[in-house]
Amino acid sequence: MKLLSSHRCFQGEQRRYCLKSKQLNSITNVGVYLPPNALGIDRQVVPALIWLSGLTCTDENAVLKSGAQRKASELGLALITPDTSPRGDDVPTDPDGHWDFGHGAGYYLDALREPWTTHYRMNSFLVDELFSLLSAELPIDVLRLGLSGHSMGGHGALVLGLRQPECFLSISAVSPIAHPSACPWGRKAFSFLLGDTPAAQAHWRQWDTVALLEDGHRRSESLLVDVGLADPYLEEQLRPEDLRIAAAENGQPLDLVLHDGYDHSYFFVASMMDRHLEHHARAMKLIV
Amino acid sequence: MKLLSSHRCFQGEQRRYCLKSKQLNSITNVGVYLPPNALGIDRQVVPALIWLSGLTCTDENAVLKSGAQRKASELGLALITPDTSPRGDDVPTDPDGHWDFGHGAGYYLDALREPWTTHYRMNSFLVDELFSLLSAELPIDVLRLGLSGHSMGGHGALVLGLRQPECFLSISAVSPIAHPSACPWGRKAFSFLLGDTPAAQAHWRQWDTVALLEDGHRRSESLLVDVGLADPYLEEQLRPEDLRIAAAENGQPLDLVLHDGYDHSYFFVASMMDRHLEHHARAMKLIV
Repeated sequence: MKLLSSHRCFQGEQRRYCLKSKQLNSITNVGVYLPPNALGIDRQVVPALIWLSGLTCTDENAVLKSGAQRKASELGLALITPDTSPRGDDVPTDPDGHWDFGHGAGYYLDALREPWTTHYRMNSFLVDELFSLLSAELPIDVLRLGLSGHSMGGHGALVLGLRQPECFLSISAVSPIAHPSACPWGRKAFSFLLGDTPAAQAHWRQWDTVALLEDGHRRSESLLVDVGLADPYLEEQLRPEDLRIAAAENGQPLDLVLHDGYDHSYFFVASMMDRHLEHHARAMKLIV
Repeated sequence: MKLLSSHRCFQGEQRRYCLKSKQLNSITNVGVYLPPNALGIDRQVVPALIWLSGLTCTDENAVLKSGAQRKASELGLALITPDTSPRGDDVPTDPDGHWDFGHGAGYYLDALREPWTTHYRMNSFLVDELFSLLSAELPIDVLRLGLSGHSMGGHGALVLGLRQPECFLSISAVSPIAHPSACPWGRKAFSFLLGDTPAAQAHWRQWDTVALLEDGHRRSESLLVDVGLADPYLEEQLRPEDLRIAAAENGQPLDLVLHDGYDHSYFFVASMMDRHLEHHARAMKLIV
């Protein structure tokens, strides 16, 4: 991991690293916020929240716009902000140049269809590669990780948290794409990355929150999910009602709150951030 | 004032307005954050903090990166974030295309030299035009205004606060250009906007914090100024030591704090924001 920049921030440090990922077959950037107690001579190994960003975002959006560092500093919690897709001139992207698939839109899964399999492996990058790098090079306790994200990143948080429950103490999401198999964004991305034949439907189910719940995946603790009622993507793309029904019918504890007046922007993310950080900090036993 | 966008944010609203300014002879954008108590049927008229941004910024930098809305919501304080210069194809800018003068770098003064006098009137825009628009169209009490800013905007806050003490209850600055007549950024801008002849020096003194203090301008309350010791512009451009001496020698109360490890970025601004909002809220009697 090569350090690109570091800024003192709320007595901690906001860093940006660059690394050559084997899983992604590309260079990728990742933001790391270390709280003050993870720095200096008396530094401690601290738990971390992994934050997955949404469509069109990079590793920088949450770093610059979520305001999460203040509360993370107070709680003694690191923040890890990966990029949202593989990057580079040799990484294929949306054939029509649209923003809802390809670069900036990797959907946190491992692709099964060409030409995407070489690079589009964000799930394996996160779980099999990034976490061990973090624990080897930084004072981060990968046995105490929370996972959250926004929009496509909320989808990633819910899916990874249901698929690999042992990797994370707690899961939350802001405005997640909760049922990608049933919405235009998700159907487009899954068709490219997983295939669009009837046989590919089985693969789709392995990367879809609603389908995972229907198929018996479960977390023992409650999922925290916040959605804005003025979100222009609410009904067509996010489908929180599908999540509510799937959780209720399959015994998954869910704390789904619909917030009047809020939209899909980082102004909503920032407004919800303390609540999410505290949700994870409770699971990490940083607060009661 | 034409509303360009509005987002629910910490139970208040982050708005962006566009207006045709007579003083600037141009269109200009301004951000307005209204806290929850300034909205709805029972809305109150609230005090406001005017935040002046630094070189290269627009009205959006502080809105997206300072994280100020959370505390402003809690305090019941509006935030006003003007642009940093006049804008438009007909507005002259740096003849060599540099970023330290012209568009994005208006220095919050009224130009005296051609071709700048038609548009470069940020001081008069703020004091004679914007505040009356805000009070006419929004639930903002312009008799209870605080003024703060970052870098060039810190210079603007200190200068406007000393020149027109009756307009503002309180003044603060993060990493201000404290002695523009004595630093490369300021000398360049003042040469363009005010002239570079020996006779122009008298005009320079009217827009320079150190010179204003030397010439008898004073505020009764203390100025709050935070500067980072890892700021790459510290000694050459910001010159906080000149400010400390001028304040001490001329009886201006000053709370100047130098912060170990912090640089010139918005990570420092965000880290200082609560402290500045509380400084102004005390002057407005929102808190004790």
